[in-house]
Amino acid sequence: MRTHYNTSVRENLIGQKVTVAGWVNSRRDHGGIIFIDLRDKSGLVQLVADPQDCKEALGVAETVRDEFVLIATGTVRARGEGLENPNLETGKIEIILENLVIENRSKAMPFDINDEKVNDEIKLRNRFLELRSKKSFDIFQLRSKATIQARNSLDELGFLDVETPILTKSTPEGARDYLVPSRVHAGEFYALPQSPQLFKQLLMVAGFDRYFQIAKCFRDEDLRADRQPEFTQIDVEMSFCTQEDVIAVAEKLIYDVFTKCGKDIPKTFKRMKYSEAMESYGSDKPDLRFHMPLIDVIDIFEKSSNEIFTDIAKDKKNNRIKALRCPNGDNIFSKRQMKGFEDYVRKFGAKGLGYFQMKEDGLKGPLTKFFTEADLEEIVKVTNLEVGDVVFFGAGDKKTVWDYMGRFRLFLANEMNIVPADKYEFLWVVDFPMFEVEDGKTKALHHPFTMPKDLNKEDLEEIESIAYDIVLNGTELGGGSIRIHKEEIQSKVFELMGISQEEAKEKFGFLLDALQYGAPSHGGFALGLDRMIMLLAGTDSIRDVIAFPKTQKAQCLLTQAPSEVDEAQLKELHIRVRKIEQ
Amino acid sequence: MRTHYNTSVRENLIGQKVTVAGWVNSRRDHGGIIFIDLRDKSGLVQLVADPQDCKEALGVAETVRDEFVLIATGTVRARGEGLENPNLETGKIEIILENLVIENRSKAMPFDINDEKVNDEIKLRNRFLELRSKKSFDIFQLRSKATIQARNSLDELGFLDVETPILTKSTPEGARDYLVPSRVHAGEFYALPQSPQLFKQLLMVAGFDRYFQIAKCFRDEDLRADRQPEFTQIDVEMSFCTQEDVIAVAEKLIYDVFTKCGKDIPKTFKRMKYSEAMESYGSDKPDLRFHMPLIDVIDIFEKSSNEIFTDIAKDKKNNRIKALRCPNGDNIFSKRQMKGFEDYVRKFGAKGLGYFQMKEDGLKGPLTKFFTEADLEEIVKVTNLEVGDVVFFGAGDKKTVWDYMGRFRLFLANEMNIVPADKYEFLWVVDFPMFEVEDGKTKALHHPFTMPKDLNKEDLEEIESIAYDIVLNGTELGGGSIRIHKEEIQSKVFELMGISQEEAKEKFGFLLDALQYGAPSHGGFALGLDRMIMLLAGTDSIRDVIAFPKTQKAQCLLTQAPSEVDEAQLKELHIRVRKIEQ
Repeated sequence: MRTHYNTSVRENLIGQKVTVAGWVNSRRDHGGIIFIDLRDKSGLVQLVADPQDCKEALGVAETVRDEFVLIATGTVRARGEGLENPNLETGKIEIILENLVIENRSKAMPFDINDEKVNDEIKLRNRFLELRSKKSFDIFQLRSKATIQARNSLDELGFLDVETPILTKSTPEGARDYLVPSRVHAGEFYALPQSPQLFKQLLMVAGFDRYFQIAKCFRDEDLRADRQPEFTQIDVEMSFCTQEDVIAVAEKLIYDVFTKCGKDIPKTFKRMKYSEAMESYGSDKPDLRFHMPLIDVIDIFEKSSNEIFTDIAKDKKNNRIKALRCPNGDNIFSKRQMKGFEDYVRKFGAKGLGYFQMKEDGLKGPLTKFFTEADLEEIVKVTNLEVGDVVFFGAGDKKTVWDYMGRFRLFLANEMNIVPADKYEFLWVVDFPMFEVEDGKTKALHHPFTMPKDLNKEDLEEIESIAYDIVLNGTELGGGSIRIHKEEIQSKVFELMGISQEEAKEKFGFLLDALQYGAPSHGGFALGLDRMIMLLAGTDSIRDVIAFPKTQKAQCLLTQAPSEVDEAQLKELHIRVRKIEQ
Repeated sequence: MRTHYNTSVRENLIGQKVTVAGWVNSRRDHGGIIFIDLRDKSGLVQLVADPQDCKEALGVAETVRDEFVLIATGTVRARGEGLENPNLETGKIEIILENLVIENRSKAMPFDINDEKVNDEIKLRNRFLELRSKKSFDIFQLRSKATIQARNSLDELGFLDVETPILTKSTPEGARDYLVPSRVHAGEFYALPQSPQLFKQLLMVAGFDRYFQIAKCFRDEDLRADRQPEFTQIDVEMSFCTQEDVIAVAEKLIYDVFTKCGKDIPKTFKRMKYSEAMESYGSDKPDLRFHMPLIDVIDIFEKSSNEIFTDIAKDKKNNRIKALRCPNGDNIFSKRQMKGFEDYVRKFGAKGLGYFQMKEDGLKGPLTKFFTEADLEEIVKVTNLEVGDVVFFGAGDKKTVWDYMGRFRLFLANEMNIVPADKYEFLWVVDFPMFEVEDGKTKALHHPFTMPKDLNKEDLEEIESIAYDIVLNGTELGGGSIRIHKEEIQSKVFELMGISQEEAKEKFGFLLDALQYGAPSHGGFALGLDRMIMLLAGTDSIRDVIAFPKTQKAQCLLTQAPSEVDEAQLKELHIRVRKIEQ
């Protein structure tokens, strides 16, 4: 119906007749001449309805309102001197209307589509209007470009795009499954997959060698700002590979996608052991856009005359005392702010937050009295303090200290405004522990299909696995592992996790079977596509990058899902809704 | 871990050391020398363990069995004279083993992976082994290639790949929905989408202009051989378009995909009106790989002295008498076979199946006595009969006659073995009726969002819509339509279908809303990807082209889904399983 998209109407078409189509972005009446900014996905072009040129078109133009859909034919003309608009791609021309058709009308908009401050509920309820903003269209164009590049990169590397089922059996990622009642098999349920993990491993057993899929995954969890009940991951698996092979594929993929989307990133990424990430950044996903590492000072504090510290220092295996240097902090932050920092870390289990100020004449602060001059000097040395700095301390059980000092590091950097927004800092965190023991229960840190390096260790938490996470700017972009390809190792891992042979057989029998019929060594990774697009687009809500997102209560306000259904439907599915218990 | 895939080890590598990895396809012992055919996704290569070269490798080779996973290093050597295998890509060389590692062992196979006659249940239960066959791998390689080409073609045409939700509201395709109970909203359910129809229309209202998605769709129907509970479609929608624009996109897409997969097909396809397809082929998806059209003979039969025929001919609007010429049928088929044909059509509602035989001296058969010589000659003329032919007749209500004569046409062609297997006959069937009235109920033939050509007709069944199906070799590959973009037309269609304003608002309120805020004209299509791959691969079961398919009872025999779940899970979801009623 159109001859051109709006922004392809340029000076080279002056004098030619064109037809464009789109939405009325705005309409102005100047002394009987009507100017319309017409919008399509490419951008804006100015239409002019002038009684001298075409009275019929003017007549139509007089009736149009914002967001009406128009098909407009006219001749391209250079704008008069001084009337050019340098902010518009098509700012040097306008289209003199010869024919104007209103293809559809529009009621008055419930909100301004370019106003980001509008209440979320109204926007989500009218998502089809919110998506009209340039910001939204640009995001989905970016998303499409990124996913097509991802597929082409993996295709070039010999990976096959294979679909795995959505109606499947409960998978073992540990989150809550969405269930689907079966009509044919009364009392039985499918589960929606939390990931294609086991299916991709089976494809390796089948000899497919290299698999990928941009896969929908589902988790019925309470939602945080960056979570959705359904999300998408770039899912990859390969055979006869080492960790290095997998990392090389992931780096190539990420490099290709980011480069395609106009971001300049390195071809290979830094690496850091899990243990170093925890010790130096208090997190398995350190944000390396700024430095500020945590410094171990337990050996110095051990010599102090403060019993709290000396007690903590007695158990160096399980406890930590960490220092965090805040450059120029003494000049930036007020006493009240410093007090606020203590309140912040207390939320994450800290008993307090000690600090010294670095003055011209040395360290000051209530804690100095517990230290010798020599020890204070050592603190200055190991934490690299300069005059005007503050150094904070966290002390206690290591997991708690890592957690709150890691969070505090990020919090401080934000307060100080030292995190560069336009930087992409990638990092591989490697050598994850295989297990995590909590309340006497042994859990797999990644998942139970991860290959351990050596199972024969007394302390289960000391067993390392061949698992790796890819971190971007402090966000976990994805991760993966080399998988167990031997049935005996898999069974042993289940046993260490306290999963009985019976339970293992019931849940993962098909995997244990498959491992006994010539399973090759294999490994892979998955990248969270939604998060990746979020970081590429520079937006801070996962909802911005999902066309029809759900609220934090897992509702689609647009279609009103979930909703009640007919009793007859439930009967066919052999279920009934529980009465609310009194 | 490998330096080469098996089939890249060729003559040019003779004398060089290589490492390959894969599965033992077979193993032979010839006078103390062991020959192993090693298989990977690329194909086979021969390994030789000779005590003269490497005793250690021979020692390992002696212990390997079929389907063991090996990593083998050795030097490439030309095979001895007379020992070349012309059937193998690598048949001119072999690898003399220097190091052989058993990466994993395998139990004895439960079935031969290349034997297609093995019982389906055993194969599906061990799908990871069935997928090891060359046939399977080739199919999934083809599928991956086809989908990547489809995406790239649509990307080049300016379509954005946009994901729509899986957890959504019941959609109106008319099949049964799969439901997902909500944990957060007691007593409420999501539905899995039967298609992204309404979401893609909303994306047009949002101004996305051109959308595509390779989308998972779900229908909880009783399964036939070519259906699965979840299936995949290439889903496309565009704005400001006519039927011609949409057809051009679909033809380009199909041309690109088939050409990429090595099939030579035309760039544009034939067209046929729906009414002609029904009248001439008794089907809205005629198989045009062979001709054999149905010929209207009601005017001739009207003149017969047989009351059955003259009665039928009284209502030419609703009844039909159709002839089907079977070339050389009198020589091919026995009397008993002809009787069998009658049994066949009776299954589809025929009261009988009349026929004439074309002998040297004219038409013969029990029915001839009802016709004059002139009328018999006219029958010969209009049906183009030659000596040796048979002509069959179907008479009765038009829908029944179309149906059984259309089926009989296909049945006969198969019996006569005249359907070429290697031909791709594409056809657009256009100008579908908007409505179908059955038992007094008005249903949309495509779906209620299809644009009607003219709603102002007394007889609802005479209203045509701008809908089109794409047919390949008698299989519906997909279809589409121009959609309604005006709220008043959409409301009118709902009204004609007997959907109350209240019901329309509850089910499709968001669509009716969206149509009032500047909806552009739009249309699109969807292609069944699974079927397309089935036709491209030349296989006859949809299960062959799905990595982890379900049985006709919608079960996954591999993972044993669906299955029972914990009572605690059901409680969280606010549902309980109904007791079986006595």
